[in-house]
Amino acid sequence: MTSPLNGQGDPAPGGDSPRDPHEGDQRWFTTTVGERISGFLCAQREELREISPDTTELLDAIATLSAGGKRMRASLCYWGWRGAGGDPRAEQIISAGAALELFQSAALIHDDIIDNSDTRRGSPSIHQLFGSFHHDRNWALDPERFGQAAAILAGDMCLSFSEEMFSSVGDAAGQVGAARKVFNRMRTEVMAGQYLDVLEEVAGPEKDPAGAVGRARTIIRYKSAKYSTEHPLMLGGALAGGSETLLSQYSGFALPLGEAFQLRDDVLGVYGDPGTTGKPAGDDLREGKRTVLTGYAFNLAPAGEAALLAKSLGNPKLGDSDVERLRHIIEDCGALRATEELIQDLSTRAFAALTGLEVDRPTCQALTALAEAAVRRVS
Amino acid sequence: MTSPLNGQGDPAPGGDSPRDPHEGDQRWFTTTVGERISGFLCAQREELREISPDTTELLDAIATLSAGGKRMRASLCYWGWRGAGGDPRAEQIISAGAALELFQSAALIHDDIIDNSDTRRGSPSIHQLFGSFHHDRNWALDPERFGQAAAILAGDMCLSFSEEMFSSVGDAAGQVGAARKVFNRMRTEVMAGQYLDVLEEVAGPEKDPAGAVGRARTIIRYKSAKYSTEHPLMLGGALAGGSETLLSQYSGFALPLGEAFQLRDDVLGVYGDPGTTGKPAGDDLREGKRTVLTGYAFNLAPAGEAALLAKSLGNPKLGDSDVERLRHIIEDCGALRATEELIQDLSTRAFAALTGLEVDRPTCQALTALAEAAVRRVS
Repeated sequence: MTSPLNGQGDPAPGGDSPRDPHEGDQRWFTTTVGERISGFLCAQREELREISPDTTELLDAIATLSAGGKRMRASLCYWGWRGAGGDPRAEQIISAGAALELFQSAALIHDDIIDNSDTRRGSPSIHQLFGSFHHDRNWALDPERFGQAAAILAGDMCLSFSEEMFSSVGDAAGQVGAARKVFNRMRTEVMAGQYLDVLEEVAGPEKDPAGAVGRARTIIRYKSAKYSTEHPLMLGGALAGGSETLLSQYSGFALPLGEAFQLRDDVLGVYGDPGTTGKPAGDDLREGKRTVLTGYAFNLAPAGEAALLAKSLGNPKLGDSDVERLRHIIEDCGALRATEELIQDLSTRAFAALTGLEVDRPTCQALTALAEAAVRRVS
Repeated sequence: MTSPLNGQGDPAPGGDSPRDPHEGDQRWFTTTVGERISGFLCAQREELREISPDTTELLDAIATLSAGGKRMRASLCYWGWRGAGGDPRAEQIISAGAALELFQSAALIHDDIIDNSDTRRGSPSIHQLFGSFHHDRNWALDPERFGQAAAILAGDMCLSFSEEMFSSVGDAAGQVGAARKVFNRMRTEVMAGQYLDVLEEVAGPEKDPAGAVGRARTIIRYKSAKYSTEHPLMLGGALAGGSETLLSQYSGFALPLGEAFQLRDDVLGVYGDPGTTGKPAGDDLREGKRTVLTGYAFNLAPAGEAALLAKSLGNPKLGDSDVERLRHIIEDCGALRATEELIQDLSTRAFAALTGLEVDRPTCQALTALAEAAVRRVS
């Protein structure tokens, strides 16, 4: 089930001639994971059609959402596997990567209900989509409630699909138990982190502002950093039978990377370009997200401005000029700079850990490229 | 991993002297499944406490909900296993039963959000519970939205726990693959069935009333019957390596039983005693459930009364006298009687199939007792 550390697999399909040895494998893996997901969902669609053709709209919504995305989690899982000596073309790493991507889709579907987000990747979020079906077809009762119900069920279905995919990972090398532990822990931590996130929105205002940055960092660690980078990389490593030392090195690289990744997301949630992020400008402010960025602002801004920020967070009716005002408050007090410095610091730690990873050259190159994309993202 | 068909296991703990040989095993299993669930959740609580003590309220809500219930699904799974010759005290059937019960808890948590149900088993539903935390602690923003977000996450966590429990079922006998197929199919079918249920609430009014009973029967088959009785029994049977013939016999017994079980639930949702059901009188009418009961009424009631029923379904403000009026409409036109006859017919088919099951005597007795409880339930 494993290959020599320098195994680079077959050339990428399509006759490309990649610049670096890892690029062909990366491209092959991303394509193959996408095909695995769409093939799986196609088969599920048939099962649903047999129950009732009416249920296939749930599946189609999941399929459309899952066709997008950068496959960052699956890719980290793949290179975690490769770095631990996993066979470059093994079936099981494709399924593991696909399971992570389906988990990500499930989390997004429910996250968008919780955050009341209308859009996702530039398209309507699932609850909005089903709400619009209701509206367009003149159905009875409330479109919003129907949209929400459909999205709860679509998310549940996608979460189950993720598990079904993960349980299809063969145990030829006897390592599935170790990978399963990572997978289980990942799910629990994401859900706990998301809960801390919504809790902070409602309970945070009464808590000590001096602790706001610390609380926000705990939240991003669990709701995002671990499952976006650390768990996928470790899952791949565990599946290939990686040593505890290697898995610990993976964590030392991926956790600061994941935190930087999420901090970048928080900055984009306030300062991002809607044309690139696919979300309205300042969306996080209207949603009431209490992030490291706002945590710094509560501590650095003049009292009156901090109070205005606190009062405005979570007000869905904030206009463009309100958002602009809040952006200035966060920037002028130095909170944006402090956050950028933290991103820089975490990135530096991640890249330093990367150089110490005991992995082969293609893996190191691939992880470097993924890390750069993660911290320099604009959407 | 298997024992002779007449294996009855050790006597029940506590020195009871049960009347029938199956009763001791049934009692032992119910107790042991409860302990397995609470032990598992206790360990998960520790993991969550390490993330943040604030997250343990999610776990406690799941634990309280999962401590209740009649363990019908777990019990059917156990006797499905026993009927196929499974060891009466095997570890793996305890985990499989616990996984089914956790799945049931997860489904209930999300179902209550979707149906806007305030109570469950006489206590506040999870979204209501977290809404009341918000209210009592004077938190910011909207209690209802917070309650809903917390319940979405609690349900997701519980769904993941169910899977984690199921994946802990050992594969000593090499039968986990067959059981996994049943488990996967069960989840997909429940979610599809629940979607058909909410779809019928909104899209049903425009559809042909003549098809209402047929559509309602499809819904109850998938959202309830299969996962309440058929899948649990078959899962146990598959896990013990039961033959296709036996599994097919199981289905022939359990599917009509499950439909009768859900039809009884539908009758209780309109005519049940709130003191026994733990739900307000006529709750299904306010929620807008379109059931076999209302399907018959649309076809049997005089036009004016059918129109009133159609108009009233899904109105959360229906008063007690409105509910009383609708009950009379459903009863007077013969819809209640038609539903009771259908329950009787399905029960008869289930009990007839039961007598033909090729299982040992304790299994047959246990399944008879479970079937009687299922169709004669009052809550």
